[in-house]
Amino acid sequence: MEPNSSSNNNNLQQQHQNQSCLEITTMEVHKVVPPPRKSTIQKLKTRMKETFFPDDPLRQFKGQPLRKKWILAAQYIFPILEWGPNYSLKLFKSDVISGLTIASLAIPQGISYAKLASLPPIVGLYSSFVPPLVYAVLGSSRDLAVGPVSIASLILGSMLRQEVSPTQDPVLFLQLAFTATFFAGLFQASLGFLRLGFIIDFLSKATLIGFMAGAAIIVSLQQLKSLLGITHFTKQMGLVPVMSSVFHNTKEWSWQTILMGFCFLVFLLLTRHVGMKRPKLFWVSAGAPLASVIISTLLVFAFKAQHHGISVIGKLEEGLNPPSWNMLKFHGSHMGLVMKTGLITGIISLTEGIAVGRTFAALKNYQVDGNKEMIAIGLMNMVGSSTSCYITTGAFSRSAVNHNAGAKTAVSNVIMSVTVMVTLLFLMPLFQYTPNVVLGAIIVTAVVGLIDIPAAYQIWKVDKFDFLVLLCAFVGVIFISVQDGLAIAVGISIFKILLQITRPKTVMLGNIPGTDIYRDHHHYKDTMKIPGFLILSVEAPINFANTTYLNERISRWIEEYESEEDLKKQSSLRYVILEMSAVSAIDTSGVAFFKDLRKAMEKKDVELVLVNPLAEVLEKLQRSDVNGDLRRPDSLYLTVGEAVASLSSTIKGSCSNPV
Amino acid sequence: MEPNSSSNNNNLQQQHQNQSCLEITTMEVHKVVPPPRKSTIQKLKTRMKETFFPDDPLRQFKGQPLRKKWILAAQYIFPILEWGPNYSLKLFKSDVISGLTIASLAIPQGISYAKLASLPPIVGLYSSFVPPLVYAVLGSSRDLAVGPVSIASLILGSMLRQEVSPTQDPVLFLQLAFTATFFAGLFQASLGFLRLGFIIDFLSKATLIGFMAGAAIIVSLQQLKSLLGITHFTKQMGLVPVMSSVFHNTKEWSWQTILMGFCFLVFLLLTRHVGMKRPKLFWVSAGAPLASVIISTLLVFAFKAQHHGISVIGKLEEGLNPPSWNMLKFHGSHMGLVMKTGLITGIISLTEGIAVGRTFAALKNYQVDGNKEMIAIGLMNMVGSSTSCYITTGAFSRSAVNHNAGAKTAVSNVIMSVTVMVTLLFLMPLFQYTPNVVLGAIIVTAVVGLIDIPAAYQIWKVDKFDFLVLLCAFVGVIFISVQDGLAIAVGISIFKILLQITRPKTVMLGNIPGTDIYRDHHHYKDTMKIPGFLILSVEAPINFANTTYLNERISRWIEEYESEEDLKKQSSLRYVILEMSAVSAIDTSGVAFFKDLRKAMEKKDVELVLVNPLAEVLEKLQRSDVNGDLRRPDSLYLTVGEAVASLSSTIKGSCSNPV
Repeated sequence: MEPNSSSNNNNLQQQHQNQSCLEITTMEVHKVVPPPRKSTIQKLKTRMKETFFPDDPLRQFKGQPLRKKWILAAQYIFPILEWGPNYSLKLFKSDVISGLTIASLAIPQGISYAKLASLPPIVGLYSSFVPPLVYAVLGSSRDLAVGPVSIASLILGSMLRQEVSPTQDPVLFLQLAFTATFFAGLFQASLGFLRLGFIIDFLSKATLIGFMAGAAIIVSLQQLKSLLGITHFTKQMGLVPVMSSVFHNTKEWSWQTILMGFCFLVFLLLTRHVGMKRPKLFWVSAGAPLASVIISTLLVFAFKAQHHGISVIGKLEEGLNPPSWNMLKFHGSHMGLVMKTGLITGIISLTEGIAVGRTFAALKNYQVDGNKEMIAIGLMNMVGSSTSCYITTGAFSRSAVNHNAGAKTAVSNVIMSVTVMVTLLFLMPLFQYTPNVVLGAIIVTAVVGLIDIPAAYQIWKVDKFDFLVLLCAFVGVIFISVQDGLAIAVGISIFKILLQITRPKTVMLGNIPGTDIYRDHHHYKDTMKIPGFLILSVEAPINFANTTYLNERISRWIEEYESEEDLKKQSSLRYVILEMSAVSAIDTSGVAFFKDLRKAMEKKDVELVLVNPLAEVLEKLQRSDVNGDLRRPDSLYLTVGEAVASLSSTIKGSCSNPV
Repeated sequence: MEPNSSSNNNNLQQQHQNQSCLEITTMEVHKVVPPPRKSTIQKLKTRMKETFFPDDPLRQFKGQPLRKKWILAAQYIFPILEWGPNYSLKLFKSDVISGLTIASLAIPQGISYAKLASLPPIVGLYSSFVPPLVYAVLGSSRDLAVGPVSIASLILGSMLRQEVSPTQDPVLFLQLAFTATFFAGLFQASLGFLRLGFIIDFLSKATLIGFMAGAAIIVSLQQLKSLLGITHFTKQMGLVPVMSSVFHNTKEWSWQTILMGFCFLVFLLLTRHVGMKRPKLFWVSAGAPLASVIISTLLVFAFKAQHHGISVIGKLEEGLNPPSWNMLKFHGSHMGLVMKTGLITGIISLTEGIAVGRTFAALKNYQVDGNKEMIAIGLMNMVGSSTSCYITTGAFSRSAVNHNAGAKTAVSNVIMSVTVMVTLLFLMPLFQYTPNVVLGAIIVTAVVGLIDIPAAYQIWKVDKFDFLVLLCAFVGVIFISVQDGLAIAVGISIFKILLQITRPKTVMLGNIPGTDIYRDHHHYKDTMKIPGFLILSVEAPINFANTTYLNERISRWIEEYESEEDLKKQSSLRYVILEMSAVSAIDTSGVAFFKDLRKAMEKKDVELVLVNPLAEVLEKLQRSDVNGDLRRPDSLYLTVGEAVASLSSTIKGSCSNPV
């Protein structure tokens, strides 16, 4: 140790140098070999498989006899064949209880959501009859309770109202709603068939939380119409027009309605709270909506309250779903809007259905195949659209009740469906005096659960940018429109990914003394820089979107190295080592980038060394390596440790003659 | 060694196990430490700096005295102040030669390109007079030759013709062209000021090669009008309408025009070939267009060919650029189109200008600051738009001639500008008899160079997907439209990036025998799997777009492990080690993914071990780690080697009792 190299840092570096000299003699250098050769077709096949069949759905068919294959195929298409044969009386008992429970929820919610979509209330009940039957045959989730849901209803209604008035032109409005449902189903089933289910992944959790909360508020605001008894209400959805409509029509407020609404809202929220706190008392919250409907109907009937400012549903038709395939319209001036509505409601309801299915599958430890579920939900909506149903999916709140009530298979959906059928056939006159205000209270109670403040707080804590996405979705939905808010949030999420690619992190690695491990120098403060070497790790695929940046950034790293007096005194920069373990892909711009970088470095008398390029990257680099730069033995290493050990002997004075 | 473990593979694994047992006693385990704490503001600042100021433009100001800072700032804004004071007679001589050379190219090209944009020919000369002067003061490239370029001219003309006819309403057309130029300049300068220059990076090399080739063919096809002497020509740009227009008007073909065009085209292509083969003879190709113009004009004048079916330019005005700020229109029905035209031509011409500047800067080893160049080009177009110039930028072919002719500074642009000025003032009558067919031949010769087949072949060789992007741009431009072809190609490029994120690679790592290096088992065939361990490396940021996929993929890896008889016999799966070195970022969905994964694995009695999460990822995981999973010492390691060594002692029989 020389007396003038006084700093502790230098001492350690000195030690390290001596040690790496020692390593040179003992360390074996491992060769970087090109990956096994694959033809373009093989590569394309692998890529296609990973993109469209990551779950390898045909795995179970491998090596089975033909008969078994047929059975498996039938079970694959109709999951009912899988669990049906083993169905027992015990399971049936559980399913009957849960089926009746969700039916008591489905009937009032069905009526309410249909009104939310500006459709006749009975369409909500139709939609709780046919689709659950279809799902019971095709669906693979055992807990999903199928029926209309609030947000899809809201979007369907608000989008179609842009062009057609449900009051002035009810038949056309109904036709458009069924047609939109058909398109939604077609779109959902196509996503499943084409195995493009990953498209719904682009609705991130943050987007959904913000979107759901915003939509819940919009839906609740719409209920002010029935909760306050206002007759002249705005047709717009935004916060501003609704509030101004509410306060410009204070004369229309009806105290009887407000009193009744307030009482039932408190009752419903209280029972909801009980149901949430004690899952065993699920029947309290599940039965409350139906109880409210019955009690309020009786009250109205007893006091003839419909003549005292309380509006009621009015006469409803009896009978099962009439066919509606003759009402599907595939031409005319509203086609653009109908297809757009189908697309948006389709994707939103699909997201909810798949998420619900996956959540409960994870709880009970079984698998739900996303693409298969999409086909099931899609076909269910296509069948629904020709039997007077509007868009349906698996609803979160109802599925939770189903799960808590002990549902074992999709038979609970069948039980619910039968109960709704009985209602449709015999009980419809009973709803004549049901007040709208109770339906409003039911909707508000149902959507309150969509506002998930703890989850939003958790996102704020973990990732500020995700919170920004959440906020944009929320604010966009409330102030602009439901679909624009969603589009903005998805746009920002994708922009974030692109920004990460455009500005990939490059970190400087240092050596952990006494090892040949190299890690981020700014993260692991005790790592040592090695004189003469600049070791950088690039943490993203290198492609057209970031080569310019990487070029600038690497030259800045080099300049920073050269301005560090300490290091320069010991040895001027000789090698730039790029650790490529995190470069998962490269394109032609990336390949050209390495050529340019090598050329630029040669002018500065610095050599570029690559460490551990991954299979695909290595292959492309070698294929375009006309100068043979990569064929030189000192330009490619398997680990940073080996590269430094092998190259440091060439740095003047680093070993034999320590500075 | 037991006799029943006969396979070589097993032997090696056996050896390795023994060795790793040895390592346990000797190997020190390094702790994963959280990164140094930074506040949200600090992180935001770093992120902002990397996003908008990756080149750290203020670096040179640091630690300078105030006076020096002012000088540097002035030089930063006006690069002319940097090289101006050292300008010498020797440099001037070089610049005069190159300036005159590019002027001889700029005059015929200016006239031709203005006609391509459906503008009066003289506007092309105006545009070669003012913008070069502005660029000489503001620009930082020494080789850029500024003036109108073919593709921007083509797009400007074709887009504006969608709404306004240049023959029926020439004044309005001119107004819109100037206004579009103003918007293009404004957009370019804003990108520079806001440091959003990386937006042009999204035009990848593959996109540009395909786009340029397609545009060159479209431009050449348009020249069939003048080359064949057709008077009734389609106004559309696509391959199909142009070819049908050509063959439906065979009666209008004029043999005199065709003969003349053919001769001059051969002459120009030959000289171009000579200029390319021998850079020293650059003046042959540079002077050929002007020579063609002079010879053809003399021929027409001598034979009165304008009366024999050869169309000529006709009378041109004399005089310098008239002011045109009163012609800029910022209201009216065409605003949408004008802004869109400005945006597209702005971005296209910016891409060309920046690419040209960077190419020659790399050749001569000086720096061009992208954002500064954008401001220079933008201001040049804004000034241009109020002095009767249409959109200009640095042209590739002309800059190459400039470079070959020995240009040293932007003074060569000034010389060119002065030459054009002299032409405008005194020589305009000479062009009266210049035949249009020669201008067509000049354009074809200029754009032929944009078709870069070797580069396309190289892309095909290296990356098939990039070639697909190239092909889409090419086919889209030829058959749909110039702007749609470009949009399609950019869309596909971005889709590819998103697909890479949505379907990140996960590879299984194996141990290189005798080391603690772990690498891709399918790439390095001699790596060994370690019984009881599944070691996976995830090669992308983990976020909302890929958590579903990763979940499915990892459970497939586990199932595959369990179906491998060999490994299972030795030890059932105990640990899944995720090597996280390549996971550059994570969001809230990713954080939730780890929680779900850990839970799912616990059910299978498998433990999840993370190796080397990067600073940002580690921080987010720890912040959301409410269960303390990451605080257990055996769930987080710095290297795979250490994790395996430390954990393998817990696997029953792996050391003390080899199977």
